[in-house]
Amino acid sequence: MKIEGKEYKTIWFEENIVKIIDQTKLPHQFIIKELKTVKDAVKAIKLMEVRGAPLIGATAAYGIVLAIIENTNNQFLVNASKDLIRSRPTAINLKWAINRMAKKLSGLDGSKLLESAINEAELICNEDINFCKNIGKNGLKIIEEIYNKKKDRVNILTHCNAGWLATINWGTATSPIYHAHKKGIPIHVWVDETRPRNQGANLTSYELNEEKISNTIIADNTGGLLMQRGQVDMCIVGTDRTLSNGDVCNKIGTYLKALAAHDNNVPFYVALPSSTIDWDIKDAKDIPIEERNSEELSHIEGLDENNEIKKILIYPKNSKVNNLAFDITPAKYVTGLITERGISEASLDGLKKLFK
Amino acid sequence: MKIEGKEYKTIWFEENIVKIIDQTKLPHQFIIKELKTVKDAVKAIKLMEVRGAPLIGATAAYGIVLAIIENTNNQFLVNASKDLIRSRPTAINLKWAINRMAKKLSGLDGSKLLESAINEAELICNEDINFCKNIGKNGLKIIEEIYNKKKDRVNILTHCNAGWLATINWGTATSPIYHAHKKGIPIHVWVDETRPRNQGANLTSYELNEEKISNTIIADNTGGLLMQRGQVDMCIVGTDRTLSNGDVCNKIGTYLKALAAHDNNVPFYVALPSSTIDWDIKDAKDIPIEERNSEELSHIEGLDENNEIKKILIYPKNSKVNNLAFDITPAKYVTGLITERGISEASLDGLKKLFK
Repeated sequence: MKIEGKEYKTIWFEENIVKIIDQTKLPHQFIIKELKTVKDAVKAIKLMEVRGAPLIGATAAYGIVLAIIENTNNQFLVNASKDLIRSRPTAINLKWAINRMAKKLSGLDGSKLLESAINEAELICNEDINFCKNIGKNGLKIIEEIYNKKKDRVNILTHCNAGWLATINWGTATSPIYHAHKKGIPIHVWVDETRPRNQGANLTSYELNEEKISNTIIADNTGGLLMQRGQVDMCIVGTDRTLSNGDVCNKIGTYLKALAAHDNNVPFYVALPSSTIDWDIKDAKDIPIEERNSEELSHIEGLDENNEIKKILIYPKNSKVNNLAFDITPAKYVTGLITERGISEASLDGLKKLFK
Repeated sequence: MKIEGKEYKTIWFEENIVKIIDQTKLPHQFIIKELKTVKDAVKAIKLMEVRGAPLIGATAAYGIVLAIIENTNNQFLVNASKDLIRSRPTAINLKWAINRMAKKLSGLDGSKLLESAINEAELICNEDINFCKNIGKNGLKIIEEIYNKKKDRVNILTHCNAGWLATINWGTATSPIYHAHKKGIPIHVWVDETRPRNQGANLTSYELNEEKISNTIIADNTGGLLMQRGQVDMCIVGTDRTLSNGDVCNKIGTYLKALAAHDNNVPFYVALPSSTIDWDIKDAKDIPIEERNSEELSHIEGLDENNEIKKILIYPKNSKVNNLAFDITPAKYVTGLITERGISEASLDGLKKLFK
């Protein structure tokens, strides 16, 4: 998708270097960062310079490529894999990407090893782009249906950033929106600010602005009132891990929006590539929920009056802070899962019909 | 209650001047501000130097006192009353306080007029303190009940600031907490940050810190997960206006917490003095919901590395923003209303049993 009119992807490989858009600097600065070692890749994931389940999966795959460039020693690669998987606990795509790389590379060495790794990482990226494109086409049908009934601007609420910046291109939750926009359907997006880290404001509103899609940032507290007032036609969010029973683990606060959608008969969809499905864990209570640094809440960065980036403390100095990053939306509150293969009920039966 | 160990009220009258704590400067600066004219009072309410339904009611009453000191001309006083009522649209207490002053002062003039105004404003404040104290005693019973069953620290979630800073003393939602703390019941408060304006972090956590009550600030998005995990024993919030049918209008986001409480069988209480009940409006849709300046979301103030207060822009420069300040929690999600006369069901029947 476009930034300042130019097409970008969120990650690409060039002359043995991985390039990413440093998402911690958006929307105030657009900086392309180079990852040269697997440590760089781990750090980029940990610091959330790259984030979003599909994109951190792709970054982990390229992390393996960087590791191989550094050192083909087996123990080094095993450690690199472990470090990458441990870099964020909740998103399932890390494990998925690393396992997929390991399977592909098993038994290879020398130049064959590197070549295969590069190919596989590229394939993961290209697959994700295709998955997201298909999620867009499938989700488009829902938006078209609402538009055909309403004959007026379709209002979509989204939480956090499941935009193209969270994937390689198109996004998950935003892909149906981009597809509808390209088809000329009038769309307006309510963008949850998404505390902490404000990825809704910083990333989703930013990328929608760049694609010239009408959007309005609201506090995370606001969606309920908008739904009560009939100002939301549907919700679409992404997911960091979806269980095979349809329970959805996503950015903290998703659950509250799903409850409000349910209470006001607003359809609530979750968009995901199949790489985000966890077929192993059966109970949402067993999903590791990341607890991040409290500074992500107590401090915030922005532009001061001289257009310089400043970080300020916004809480009382001696207050305790807890920063849980994800919550669980039970399947019963999910109208449907928009996947690359079609729209599924949020249930094992539904998912089994499309996959496996 | 205490700030730096010294007892304060949020508003007091001294030598024909009204004194307030400028709440826009907390928690970073503690500044006592003087209001000398009715315009000062209107401005203090509009800019939210004073906020919270009971406190803005009291400020409006003292605004009438200041108006009388300025000019006893009837038209001047009528205009002053109108300006005060219009200074914030949602809280019912403004109208309530102004009507009460008008009733008391009708037919009076000269020194009698000023004397009566001062007495009535003082009476409104003292009544509010008593109301809040009684809310505390009534709410304490609920906390005691939970503690007696649990025999462990009681975890209470609150939204925004319905603390003593929102009233004259004690607070509404916090009064049961302060009473329980004074009785030695171990309490921990989950404080919703409460975007925009962050009154949870800036005011509630601040005042709980000053009273040495254990509390943790969380993002507004977090309460749902905490309730899913069983880490919240009860919710208590305040209200800006409660309809006689039990529907509660309070700071935006309250509704989402009530939904989560309902979904997880966590009791959800609303604490209010009877001055906050609207006996006239029958349908929550008719409550005027204030839409405030978008800068309250897009910009934020805090301390920079030199301990200086800085205001920064935290959103993309060209993003649209919508800042709705209140939402409606339907009565069916409210476990009970904690009032100065006792705990009532959130319904006309319940309220009628206690009042009228």
